[in-house]
Amino acid sequence: MNMKLGVLGTGIVGTTIGTKLVQLGHEVMMGSRTQNNAKAATWVQASGPRASQGTFADAARFGETLFNCTNGAASVDALNLAGAANLSGKVLLDIANPLDFSKGMPPTLSVCNTDSLGEQIRRAFPNVKVVKTLNTMSCKIMVNPSLLPGEHDVFVSGNDRAAKAKVIEILKGWFGWKSVIDLGDITAARGTEQVLALWVRLMGTLGTANFNFKIVK
Amino acid sequence: MNMKLGVLGTGIVGTTIGTKLVQLGHEVMMGSRTQNNAKAATWVQASGPRASQGTFADAARFGETLFNCTNGAASVDALNLAGAANLSGKVLLDIANPLDFSKGMPPTLSVCNTDSLGEQIRRAFPNVKVVKTLNTMSCKIMVNPSLLPGEHDVFVSGNDRAAKAKVIEILKGWFGWKSVIDLGDITAARGTEQVLALWVRLMGTLGTANFNFKIVK
Repeated sequence: MNMKLGVLGTGIVGTTIGTKLVQLGHEVMMGSRTQNNAKAATWVQASGPRASQGTFADAARFGETLFNCTNGAASVDALNLAGAANLSGKVLLDIANPLDFSKGMPPTLSVCNTDSLGEQIRRAFPNVKVVKTLNTMSCKIMVNPSLLPGEHDVFVSGNDRAAKAKVIEILKGWFGWKSVIDLGDITAARGTEQVLALWVRLMGTLGTANFNFKIVK
Repeated sequence: MNMKLGVLGTGIVGTTIGTKLVQLGHEVMMGSRTQNNAKAATWVQASGPRASQGTFADAARFGETLFNCTNGAASVDALNLAGAANLSGKVLLDIANPLDFSKGMPPTLSVCNTDSLGEQIRRAFPNVKVVKTLNTMSCKIMVNPSLLPGEHDVFVSGNDRAAKAKVIEILKGWFGWKSVIDLGDITAARGTEQVLALWVRLMGTLGTANFNFKIVK
């Protein structure tokens, strides 16, 4: 079914997710700080009539379901610009990671251990149905898991069961995921965000971002 | 070749590792705070003539290669009791995780993000060849990876190449690991220690500790 979707963020994650959603036949508005962001404009031009751009507030208002693809360090700010009223009641797939590059490479996390970005977003916007997902892999794999051989896993966590069920539908039905592991409530975002420290090391060791975690049991 | 090995710690990890090492034909001394620790005595009795017990210092002196199987929160203290002179120049497989249960379940980490237990040990004992490994799975799987189907991964990190090569030999030759991923220097211990937050969640979701990570690429 054709849906109206909002993608917050114009980086590689936002454009990759946005492009996939347009290809699936949905109407997608990409949101950024300004109405005429150049990267969003390039994406709209490449993506055809179902793609549009606007401010974070425009995209949040437009989308029935929202994708947080902003830089994790800027996510709460971006959502504040989107506006609590425009976000209220909606499912937000939170794909961002709170990576802090200010101390050099490899990045550290700006929040971890006893808190997470997913939890920060939920506290700041209690009426948003935040589901943390897809943040443990490169964006190419997010929307095309068959790039890698065999089965491998994507995680979801969040406090709203219906929202998680909807996200699992998106992951399986739209993006082609076969194995989705529900880790429980949003505090499990600590686990999937902290895994980035291992992910970054693996990228260096393997010489590629095209890999993913599989839980063997 | 028959070796003298020291296992520091008398918990489930120490006894599982110690038992495996004895079964492989090595002489193993289990070290603890006291010379007559009851759990170590039970293990010695069950493990036969190649098993012995002593203080942390006794075990560190005895072992040509050492296994840190202590509680992560107590590891640096235990190694201080072992004594820098007894540890000096030896390879130490650091299997511990800095889990902090004082704030309730699930546990948090007492060090993370910009530091790790592996790094703390290396700073405290610069003459010890610390190799972080095996800390991302249940101890049953550490010494018997074929409990799980197919290939899955164990990580190593450390600053001494020869020590890592020796540890990889132990993992493959003694414990039966097929896939060992070298993540680089000891700072990569941040990655493998932080993964515990995800591991604990997965244990809850899957209802078992018998699982492991595989990197699909």
